[in-house]
Amino acid sequence: MKKIKLVIAYDGTDFSGFQRQPDKRTIQGTLEKVLSQLTGEEIQIYGSGRTDAGVHALGQVCHFSTNSPIPVDKYLYILRRLLPRDIVVQSCEEVPCDFHARKSAYWKTYRYQIETSRIPHIFMRRFYTHRPFVLDTKAMQEAGQLLLGTYDFTSFCSAKTVIEDRVRTIYDCQILKESNSILIEVTGNGFLYNMVRIIAGTLYEVGRGIRSAQEIVQILAAKDRTKAGPTFPPEGLILLQVGYVPWQDSATHFSCK
Amino acid sequence: MKKIKLVIAYDGTDFSGFQRQPDKRTIQGTLEKVLSQLTGEEIQIYGSGRTDAGVHALGQVCHFSTNSPIPVDKYLYILRRLLPRDIVVQSCEEVPCDFHARKSAYWKTYRYQIETSRIPHIFMRRFYTHRPFVLDTKAMQEAGQLLLGTYDFTSFCSAKTVIEDRVRTIYDCQILKESNSILIEVTGNGFLYNMVRIIAGTLYEVGRGIRSAQEIVQILAAKDRTKAGPTFPPEGLILLQVGYVPWQDSATHFSCK
Repeated sequence: MKKIKLVIAYDGTDFSGFQRQPDKRTIQGTLEKVLSQLTGEEIQIYGSGRTDAGVHALGQVCHFSTNSPIPVDKYLYILRRLLPRDIVVQSCEEVPCDFHARKSAYWKTYRYQIETSRIPHIFMRRFYTHRPFVLDTKAMQEAGQLLLGTYDFTSFCSAKTVIEDRVRTIYDCQILKESNSILIEVTGNGFLYNMVRIIAGTLYEVGRGIRSAQEIVQILAAKDRTKAGPTFPPEGLILLQVGYVPWQDSATHFSCK
Repeated sequence: MKKIKLVIAYDGTDFSGFQRQPDKRTIQGTLEKVLSQLTGEEIQIYGSGRTDAGVHALGQVCHFSTNSPIPVDKYLYILRRLLPRDIVVQSCEEVPCDFHARKSAYWKTYRYQIETSRIPHIFMRRFYTHRPFVLDTKAMQEAGQLLLGTYDFTSFCSAKTVIEDRVRTIYDCQILKESNSILIEVTGNGFLYNMVRIIAGTLYEVGRGIRSAQEIVQILAAKDRTKAGPTFPPEGLILLQVGYVPWQDSATHFSCK
């Protein structure tokens, strides 16, 4: 038995999210179907976490276990041929038996992309949220810095969230200004449901001058979803990277019983 | 009666080309349907030329005539709301009665985009042809320069072409190298069926060292489609710009009877 880690990118536009669902086109479902056909086994994919319908990834991580004799270095090429064009495997490697795409993850970085040009660029529409306004990126940066640290992020998660423990740690939040867009990059040890999209909606309101940067402090303290800004649409959101502690002995072969 | 010129951009991936066809999703058909509903007239769209299924545009030009009292400066906003997200109107202006999107066009610029990174980037797949190879852009540039001038381009047009006069003038051909892509930009007074895609396929072969740059001279002279390289796929092709002589009096109102 081998455990294999995949780093994948996808254009989430035409998927009903990551998680397998009957009769829906999902990332997990598509990968499982292709890998099961390839190996002749019933492959189960474990992702670092779900992404919602319409959300993209450049560095989603998942793993699966298999007894297939296919050499690990062949998967990259084979999967590129078998998968639809909106999922691309970036890398593929054997990992120790105790690796787990979700449980072993230490941090994740998401990027939210806002296109600010007057007329939306036709090549960007699938990956950016269009808001044709000048944003005060200095104020947004200041607001983002107030999110750093360990807090109860109830105000920044969907009211539908059933999870009890809403304490998360944000390690970094950067606002990057490009010629026609503003990128919000957030790194944390974990994210609640809709958390990055609500952070994006709130920082956007700071950027437009609807809120002051300092309001972030009160929003966090309130633990009340209605105090934060809108949930921004899924198309601007990208899972950029998932961080793991490097395994000690990655050069040798692992045996997973 | 007013004549209105539109500059439009589209993601051609999900269209069966520019030209109206029964029961197919086309650019012309979509524009005509939306404009006819808007004006209550039967609007006919004239484009600067057709683009094939899967081919994109950043600066396609078309015109239509209407008696609608809608002010010209409102179309931009209204059409952005009514059109599907894969067609975007970039500009809209009233033009003299004798303007014709196709007949008045002096030149066109197309760009062919080749992505050369090892693994295709998920955000580029709709607009680039992926060829994971290092290309000799100097040789490609040299070959491109041999296309400049007025020639019979029979070797560079689809064998299916019925048009008799295959003499066209190429004004410019530039090879642009970006970090993970090569862009081929060609400007000419007109292009034959598949011409830019065959130029792209041929210059690609020069870039890979399969042909020498000098071979362009013999290919042109042969007037034989089989002598040139392959027709590259539609997804890498973009109609960038259509050039017109500026009308003399664009500030005043035109009256088209």
